[in-house]
Amino acid sequence: MQKYKKEFDYSYALGTELTLELLLSHPKDTIGVYVHSKQKDNEIYQRIMALCQKNRIEVIRSDKAFNIVNAKENCYIMGVFRKFTNDIDFSRNHVVLVNPGNMGNAGTILRTCVGFGINDIAIISPRIDIYDPKTVRASMRAFFTVRFSYFSSFDEYLKKAVNRDIFCFMLDGKVNLQDVSISDRNYSLVFGNEATGLPAEYHEYGTSVFIEQLNTVDSLNLDNAVSIAVYQFVNMKPNRSRS
Amino acid sequence: MQKYKKEFDYSYALGTELTLELLLSHPKDTIGVYVHSKQKDNEIYQRIMALCQKNRIEVIRSDKAFNIVNAKENCYIMGVFRKFTNDIDFSRNHVVLVNPGNMGNAGTILRTCVGFGINDIAIISPRIDIYDPKTVRASMRAFFTVRFSYFSSFDEYLKKAVNRDIFCFMLDGKVNLQDVSISDRNYSLVFGNEATGLPAEYHEYGTSVFIEQLNTVDSLNLDNAVSIAVYQFVNMKPNRSRS
Repeated sequence: MQKYKKEFDYSYALGTELTLELLLSHPKDTIGVYVHSKQKDNEIYQRIMALCQKNRIEVIRSDKAFNIVNAKENCYIMGVFRKFTNDIDFSRNHVVLVNPGNMGNAGTILRTCVGFGINDIAIISPRIDIYDPKTVRASMRAFFTVRFSYFSSFDEYLKKAVNRDIFCFMLDGKVNLQDVSISDRNYSLVFGNEATGLPAEYHEYGTSVFIEQLNTVDSLNLDNAVSIAVYQFVNMKPNRSRS
Repeated sequence: MQKYKKEFDYSYALGTELTLELLLSHPKDTIGVYVHSKQKDNEIYQRIMALCQKNRIEVIRSDKAFNIVNAKENCYIMGVFRKFTNDIDFSRNHVVLVNPGNMGNAGTILRTCVGFGINDIAIISPRIDIYDPKTVRASMRAFFTVRFSYFSSFDEYLKKAVNRDIFCFMLDGKVNLQDVSISDRNYSLVFGNEATGLPAEYHEYGTSVFIEQLNTVDSLNLDNAVSIAVYQFVNMKPNRSRS
């Protein structure tokens, strides 16, 4: 058992709910389940044990493993899983994260996107490690339902993502989110890094959009901006402006 | 110098930007400014020193103080300030947080509200300590512009908050946020605790509202819900439904 590293071909699902979701959605990718001596013999524990038995997944009882992997949080069950791929569907709407920097944020964004029915997330390098246990945990299980693909550049993404409308969220975007209208085509909602946003060239990739703020202390944080944007888009009707 | 405690009558603004905002907005409440030996002699540092001199605020050079107050982050300047009060304005729109639990979240919420022009935040007990350095820091300076008041119960709040429309955000709210309409009166947007939401009796306090999610992995986190709601409300026109 080792502290997680990006180079590993496996990662950890920390906590009972995540481990249960892992076993339900990816039993074949589950390598083993660790159980701490403080774990109570409750209903979710019994479901986890039953799924391990059914899928012949090893259960390891060890308190030490938790100290190594998870220094801070109260977590008494964790699943170890092989990094699986679940590529995005190009016939759906996407959220595209360009060079995201914060792994907890990325998890929250996955959770919000899945909540609003956007299950396809493209990540443009340089990028976070989406398999990091922090991202997995912050996603609140959305990690196991979302599809995601990495691209080395936005141009690489565009080669595959054809026939769709691109909306780039930028502080100096040209169109107010309130005035955006959508067509019947799929769309991609593109967001930059937490600290630096999208580079200026993204004005040229499609429609650049801004979220109007009346009193700019500092810009919205990334996951709030994604929440507002995704909520607006999923509630828009094609070919009609909202305003 | 001591690690922050709720009982203190002072708190800390960690970092150059927060300290600058503190000195600009609340010079009379600033007790002193600590400077770490690693702080560079840059423009913002010089502005801070000039403001300290102008307002006769003590500058203390000490590295040890930073170890005590701020274990984790890179922060080389901090301001110590008396806890000031800046009560909410009852002739404005409000965001009301009922029993909020997470101090970082609360800071992010302040930042978002101020960004959208809602500067009045009511907090219903039991409650977080809004002066906690974590909240102050996460607010990204909004802490120093927002007005806030504590109330021992929602009924206490309502005694003062008359002639306004109350919208309570609840997972089982009766009206879809998309279908909400507002009048010419002020409104209060009411949100519950991160983990537990608003108790059922809040259905009776006004209009209970839900944010529709297509695929509920888990509900939105609190600051994303507040962001979406505030963005929708500030973009609504009175007496007209959005839908």
